[in-house]
Amino acid sequence: MPLSARSATAPFIAMDILAEAGRLEAEGRDIVHMEVGEPAYGAPRAAHEALAAAQGGLGYTGGLGLPALREAIAELYARRYGIALPADRIVVTAGSSAGFVLAFLALFDAGARVALADPGYPAYRNILGTLGLTAVRIEATPETRYQPTPALLSAAAAAEDAIGGLILASPSNPTGTMLDAPTLAALIDACAASGVSLVADEIYHGLTYDAPAPTALAHTDEVVVINSFSKYWAMTGWRIGWMVVPEAMVRPVQNLAQNLFICAPHPAQIAAIGALSEAGEAEAASHMAAYRANRERMIATLQTLGFTGIAPADGAFYAYASLPEGTPDSTAFCQRLLSEYGVAATPGLDFDPLRGNRTVRFSYAQSPERIEEGCSRLAKMMAAG
Amino acid sequence: MPLSARSATAPFIAMDILAEAGRLEAEGRDIVHMEVGEPAYGAPRAAHEALAAAQGGLGYTGGLGLPALREAIAELYARRYGIALPADRIVVTAGSSAGFVLAFLALFDAGARVALADPGYPAYRNILGTLGLTAVRIEATPETRYQPTPALLSAAAAAEDAIGGLILASPSNPTGTMLDAPTLAALIDACAASGVSLVADEIYHGLTYDAPAPTALAHTDEVVVINSFSKYWAMTGWRIGWMVVPEAMVRPVQNLAQNLFICAPHPAQIAAIGALSEAGEAEAASHMAAYRANRERMIATLQTLGFTGIAPADGAFYAYASLPEGTPDSTAFCQRLLSEYGVAATPGLDFDPLRGNRTVRFSYAQSPERIEEGCSRLAKMMAAG
Repeated sequence: MPLSARSATAPFIAMDILAEAGRLEAEGRDIVHMEVGEPAYGAPRAAHEALAAAQGGLGYTGGLGLPALREAIAELYARRYGIALPADRIVVTAGSSAGFVLAFLALFDAGARVALADPGYPAYRNILGTLGLTAVRIEATPETRYQPTPALLSAAAAAEDAIGGLILASPSNPTGTMLDAPTLAALIDACAASGVSLVADEIYHGLTYDAPAPTALAHTDEVVVINSFSKYWAMTGWRIGWMVVPEAMVRPVQNLAQNLFICAPHPAQIAAIGALSEAGEAEAASHMAAYRANRERMIATLQTLGFTGIAPADGAFYAYASLPEGTPDSTAFCQRLLSEYGVAATPGLDFDPLRGNRTVRFSYAQSPERIEEGCSRLAKMMAAG
Repeated sequence: MPLSARSATAPFIAMDILAEAGRLEAEGRDIVHMEVGEPAYGAPRAAHEALAAAQGGLGYTGGLGLPALREAIAELYARRYGIALPADRIVVTAGSSAGFVLAFLALFDAGARVALADPGYPAYRNILGTLGLTAVRIEATPETRYQPTPALLSAAAAAEDAIGGLILASPSNPTGTMLDAPTLAALIDACAASGVSLVADEIYHGLTYDAPAPTALAHTDEVVVINSFSKYWAMTGWRIGWMVVPEAMVRPVQNLAQNLFICAPHPAQIAAIGALSEAGEAEAASHMAAYRANRERMIATLQTLGFTGIAPADGAFYAYASLPEGTPDSTAFCQRLLSEYGVAATPGLDFDPLRGNRTVRFSYAQSPERIEEGCSRLAKMMAAG
């Protein structure tokens, strides 16, 4: 059967490296995993306990999710940000992935142009393309802490056809940089002024090292916020997340969700209620000390080894940096690092198709012992030349 | 924020009725659930046990799914159909919903026309529309057992622009009718002859009352087969299923899956391995006696009450029939049945936008006691006039 043109989607390189690392492990190799944002710790015990205690057949839930989970998420907004958010505006999704699909479908028709910063999460661009939307690149630089600015947004909007949307990620993947509240508010206002619909990716909230990350919802209700239990609560494989949408968007998103997903996985919804308990939150928070230690070790290693442009990560658990001069391109670099030294890392091409051949993302979500081992092996390779 | 035109997707009416039934239950009403294909029994014990015994953090899996699950599904094809299927061609998905999204994206570009029988599963049409594809209606009738035929396919293809694809469902939802092996083969050959890509929905396989359902894979490798653990294994809310694709489609589907879904839910993948164990299969098979009894009770009730055109269900757990003359339209009928008699059923408009105002689908996946109760209440309403 002939395949569609849109089936030629770019692979998610980090996932391919994860698969290659798995093959090497199956051969008995010891691999340090720094290629994906996979926390070492797994779901909170309270999440497992909630699922084990669940009664009933775990059948379909409504397309918007279990009412108890939507209420628990609303309480998180009160606790974490001091925001009173109606549970009615919260849609439980199968991870942030489903949130992006639903947001893009509900906001944009085929042909629309959606701006996003490079470097950025590769699936934004790939999902947009698959759904007939055009990703408009905003070239982010160390000078703007790898984030868009109102000026960059205006330039992108003015330089070409009108932009229908903007995706913001704070803290960002792969750089970990964050928008402070005034900059975020200025971007939100710039979007509103120019009729640009805003999608704010907040999946690394909670995982911040100095100040907490401000939510777009503190400044406006006219935004789609995407969040997930994958990162802070370490529930990646459970595929459970949520979106917050304006009131008028709830019913259209519900219809789309019923048809495309039916519902988010019911067992994961139950587990997520457990994750939001006091014990679940405390366990999630307890991992921050390890990430903080990893971050220091990782950045110090990269500095020592001559990496440049190291992104000043305010949050998340990634180090994004340019390779030292004289090294091969990032794909060859990561291949050698994996095959010869057993360290999986992701070439920057996943995050920045134009400049990523000189950059690498290292995830430091694994335990301090493993990150220490990964840093040692990286140093060994750099010393070998 | 302005919403897209494609956000005006039709609701999945059955899911809306499920939600309304839930609201009535919250008020203390006793509701008989005949609106959705939700088995009474829940996941096999072996599925729960497999999950409880799982080691490790349940992190991301590869986009194609756990190798052990893909192998177990390949063994199912050997066991159930006598087919040697390479596990490499099996893609684990977040329910059949994700399978349809991936199949449609991988096979069809925006503007393509895809044929399907009315009455049929509403999400086919709604997903197609959302992805920029045009659903081409094949009006199925009792004369063809509510299934497409090669002649109907040719007529649909000849009457309008070229058709790029065909969706077959056997056993079908909402009618439960099945394509026998010769008719299925003839349809497959007709597709091949006219360059039509075939997507075969086989999610009700295993749930058949006389002959087993033939798989399209027995006749061709050039087909996308969609299947799921939701129905036979009663794991609806777990969101776990699979697709079988031609060799050349594996990598494109993997790329799409990584970007759109990352992976199917890991806990559900583990549970599905348990469901495919000997004990899991035996437990799933043990529910057939109840469905068989329900089917007899349901069809007898509809006949007695004057329903007409009752679909001759070979499989699944649905009765689809036309309302007796003199009754109001199916939406009003189902509303009254739910609000006054506490029986949730789905108006045919979910399955056939043109003729469904006179038809109703009753699901008989609940226990014989509940279906008995539902039939009694239905008879009471008909007697009340």
